Amino acid sequence: MHGTMMDTQLTVPTILERIRTQYAPREVVSLLVAGRDEAGNPIAHKHRTTYGQVADRARRLAGGLLGLGLQKGDRVATLAVNSFRHLEAYLGVPSAGLVLHTVNIRLHPEQIGWILNHAEDRVLLIENVFAAMIPTIKAACPRLEHILILGPTPQPIPLPGVHDYDTFVMGSEPLTRYPDLNEHDAAAMCYTSGTTGNPKGVIYTHRSTVLHSIVSAPKDALNVGERDSVLPIVPMFHVNAWGLPYTCALYGAKQVYAGVFSDGRTVATLLQDEAVTITAGVPTIWMGLLAELDRAAAAGEPYQLSGLERLVVGGSAAPESMIRAFQRHKLDMLQAWGMTETHPLGTASGVPVGVDPTSDEGFALRAKQGRPVPLIELGLIDEAGQPLPHDGQTMGRLIIRGPWVANAYFKGEGQSNFFEIDGQLWFDTGDIATLDDRGYMHIQDRAKDLIKSGGEWISSVDLENAIMAHPAVAQCAVIAMDHPKWDERPLAVVVPREGQSVTHAELVDFIAPKFARWWLPDATVMAESLPIGATGKFLKRELREQYRGHSAAQTESAPERQ
Amino acid sequence: MHGTMMDTQLTVPTILERIRTQYAPREVVSLLVAGRDEAGNPIAHKHRTTYGQVADRARRLAGGLLGLGLQKGDRVATLAVNSFRHLEAYLGVPSAGLVLHTVNIRLHPEQIGWILNHAEDRVLLIENVFAAMIPTIKAACPRLEHILILGPTPQPIPLPGVHDYDTFVMGSEPLTRYPDLNEHDAAAMCYTSGTTGNPKGVIYTHRSTVLHSIVSAPKDALNVGERDSVLPIVPMFHVNAWGLPYTCALYGAKQVYAGVFSDGRTVATLLQDEAVTITAGVPTIWMGLLAELDRAAAAGEPYQLSGLERLVVGGSAAPESMIRAFQRHKLDMLQAWGMTETHPLGTASGVPVGVDPTSDEGFALRAKQGRPVPLIELGLIDEAGQPLPHDGQTMGRLIIRGPWVANAYFKGEGQSNFFEIDGQLWFDTGDIATLDDRGYMHIQDRAKDLIKSGGEWISSVDLENAIMAHPAVAQCAVIAMDHPKWDERPLAVVVPREGQSVTHAELVDFIAPKFARWWLPDATVMAESLPIGATGKFLKRELREQYRGHSAAQTESAPERQ
Repeated sequence: MHGTMMDTQLTVPTILERIRTQYAPREVVSLLVAGRDEAGNPIAHKHRTTYGQVADRARRLAGGLLGLGLQKGDRVATLAVNSFRHLEAYLGVPSAGLVLHTVNIRLHPEQIGWILNHAEDRVLLIENVFAAMIPTIKAACPRLEHILILGPTPQPIPLPGVHDYDTFVMGSEPLTRYPDLNEHDAAAMCYTSGTTGNPKGVIYTHRSTVLHSIVSAPKDALNVGERDSVLPIVPMFHVNAWGLPYTCALYGAKQVYAGVFSDGRTVATLLQDEAVTITAGVPTIWMGLLAELDRAAAAGEPYQLSGLERLVVGGSAAPESMIRAFQRHKLDMLQAWGMTETHPLGTASGVPVGVDPTSDEGFALRAKQGRPVPLIELGLIDEAGQPLPHDGQTMGRLIIRGPWVANAYFKGEGQSNFFEIDGQLWFDTGDIATLDDRGYMHIQDRAKDLIKSGGEWISSVDLENAIMAHPAVAQCAVIAMDHPKWDERPLAVVVPREGQSVTHAELVDFIAPKFARWWLPDATVMAESLPIGATGKFLKRELREQYRGHSAAQTESAPERQ
Repeated sequence: MHGTMMDTQLTVPTILERIRTQYAPREVVSLLVAGRDEAGNPIAHKHRTTYGQVADRARRLAGGLLGLGLQKGDRVATLAVNSFRHLEAYLGVPSAGLVLHTVNIRLHPEQIGWILNHAEDRVLLIENVFAAMIPTIKAACPRLEHILILGPTPQPIPLPGVHDYDTFVMGSEPLTRYPDLNEHDAAAMCYTSGTTGNPKGVIYTHRSTVLHSIVSAPKDALNVGERDSVLPIVPMFHVNAWGLPYTCALYGAKQVYAGVFSDGRTVATLLQDEAVTITAGVPTIWMGLLAELDRAAAAGEPYQLSGLERLVVGGSAAPESMIRAFQRHKLDMLQAWGMTETHPLGTASGVPVGVDPTSDEGFALRAKQGRPVPLIELGLIDEAGQPLPHDGQTMGRLIIRGPWVANAYFKGEGQSNFFEIDGQLWFDTGDIATLDDRGYMHIQDRAKDLIKSGGEWISSVDLENAIMAHPAVAQCAVIAMDHPKWDERPLAVVVPREGQSVTHAELVDFIAPKFARWWLPDATVMAESLPIGATGKFLKRELREQYRGHSAAQTESAPERQ
């Protein structure tokens, strides 16, 4: 419209141009694999580059891909770990008008092939450590025209269409004039983990990517600025590493990438040596870090992490006990929540004015998933689709809307998850949650993991978090087991800490003060480990299949009945 | 598009709904006028309310205005100071689909009438302290149907269509369902100060308002979050008080408003008593605050401002000496730059990693206007419209583009300020600036204030800032005087500090080490004060008219010649 504001489009080249023109000297640090030790474990090599170099190579990648004949909207897949090369693809692929399709490296090769075919990817960027998969992938994906290998390989792979990424990039002319892009054009895509049914594709647009990057930066979200050093442990192959590669580039923060390494010792050392101020990952990663920090402190050689201002945790609910444990190391953990379908940032769990973050009330609030970031709306509905009160008590299906929430899956699949209320489109998260009058959202469960006992709902997540606070418990999953009278009753599956043991009665006594009597698990079984899926979450479906027929009588101790 | 992201619109009701649903208990503090002392000066009364109350009243105002028959896009003017009532209008008027037109209270009543007529305002919200103007305005503006008086008046004003705002608001039903709004719809408007020609209207859209609010929040811009207490001294009647009312509401920061009060003592006391963390204003305000802080410190009764993290300065270039002076009080001043046409935030002058903000290099960078915030692009062109290098040396006309930059003035006026380069629309700021390879922009002058001496440009702003660092100088403006050989030569107009004096020779000696010899002013004249316009800037045009015929021979000391 004439006489108002410019209709400047929100597009990824804006981000690329900022690191090129404002932040060229800022560093990007990556742990690469330099070789293998005698046990076959990877040996780390620390690689340093700058935003200026990344920008140049991203523009060369963009130019090279268009030189291969790719057209606007074509998909370019990555099967890669966190590194500067993946960052180049994050910036270069969408800036060429192409769509960056990050594929989860933890999936089975057959699923990877299915996803590459479903997305109709024309080019694949594959990490050198996965190069052995190339023949299989080529055979399974006839549409795939080119494969670029990220990092050196012991010898060239003499297959048609297979290239060394660095050679390809440095042999290409940089793209200096970006294609005309509408902000609603696709920029990236990611498939849901697909624990039920086939994976579904979510398309991120240029607009959603830019808006998400800006909304992530303020202090009540992730607190990113130029003076920060950020280590996203959360993988770049899943939901854009929570958008951090884009947010950090937009604001000029140093980026640190751990590649294939995620053990406590490597992470702690990297946090210390690269003076990291902000890091982000799933609870299982932080469990490993916590053990290493405890070990080092007990050994009288604590890590120097005084500059580390914020550990962001998401992907699964963070137990309050973990937030408290990090506070004992003087480290602030901030819980955030989102999904593949929400880019992901939906909420962040800061503490409002007037509440001490290290008080009991503060920790309780921080154990919730938090309040919506700007432009995100949350709602609760019952099974008939009617709105439920935001009273902090009533559990309902959590629904969400906003400019970085999917309006449908790729190719229109899974339509039942999207629906209108009063002409406004909402996405059904599949989570069961409460909302309170300050806007705090607290996930109670995945709808499919809820335990339906005698017509009432029991939150498996609440029980797990309470049980995990017990000092003898390393991990815990609570699942439904069949029950002739109550339909379902809770069963706790517990992995004890090394060298420790605990009984069902002890656990029930421990958590009893926090719950109604009928919520308490009927039984506890001990396990050596819990199955973990491709995105780092417990695979409760597998546990349920394993223990569905379990009855309280089979367990070590007498069941409590409601 | 199907299978991508929701096309959720970026609109002002999003901001209103956040304070209503997330931040209802957060305070809004306003200094109102309780009466007059014997000398006729206003006496302050401190008013406290909450975001919950503001949201309720804003929705009532929206409902009431629609009840008057106003239609989408109709303009509602305000002639008001900073207060909670003005904030209600900021949120309520655009949420009703109407356009908030803030009018500069410092304009002459005739200009005010001209602007109200030009904008075709249907309703005016007027501060009670200006109620005496109502008959004049009504006579001049026949289109104006309703006038709402903000705050109590000694007696009712018995004119048709004149109402008490509070009565009107509390007698109206709240709007609970917002109209369908497109993000490109107009939300607010503001006229340029119009030092040349008629004022021109700039229309802010819902999209630009929301984007500007989000981009303002991160720490490399204004650093606003829920735990902040923000005092915008910058007036709400001009460029939306730099967007702070919206940014603070979106993020839940407490807002503090000083109303008609802007003297150093009132501001310092308010900063202290309301535990303000962020404040924003023009240099003249900070000069007054600085004098008060110096006075109080010298008297051994310093203000307690340890929580004050950031003084944002804009509107005119902040001299480095002022930034250093505040640092001596342990207060960080951040320079920002923008214009009515840019909403206003264009740049912020943070210091990059590796530079100590209190080193000489740090202060020098902070005295520049800074680097563009995300989504804003800057360029430099010569008089033929050709791009100039970003080398930190070359001066050129500063051009700007971005999603909160005007694409034209209201009713299509002033078209020569908008032009395309390679199909992209740019706005010519009328400023002369340099840009460097890190993105730092440094305003050298307004194009019309540049001194053109022998075909070369001399920056009046650089000279002023250097002269103002002299301890005997309170204020300084450097302007062009006619010269038979060089066309123009610089003349310094200086207001000495009370009880001090300084000569031309002393000033030239003081600044000579910083400038080429031919830049140095030929003459200095002393003045008791400098003329200040409606937006708080020196009126150089008036000074130039006054001194155009001045020659170096007339001054107290012998001229230096190039």
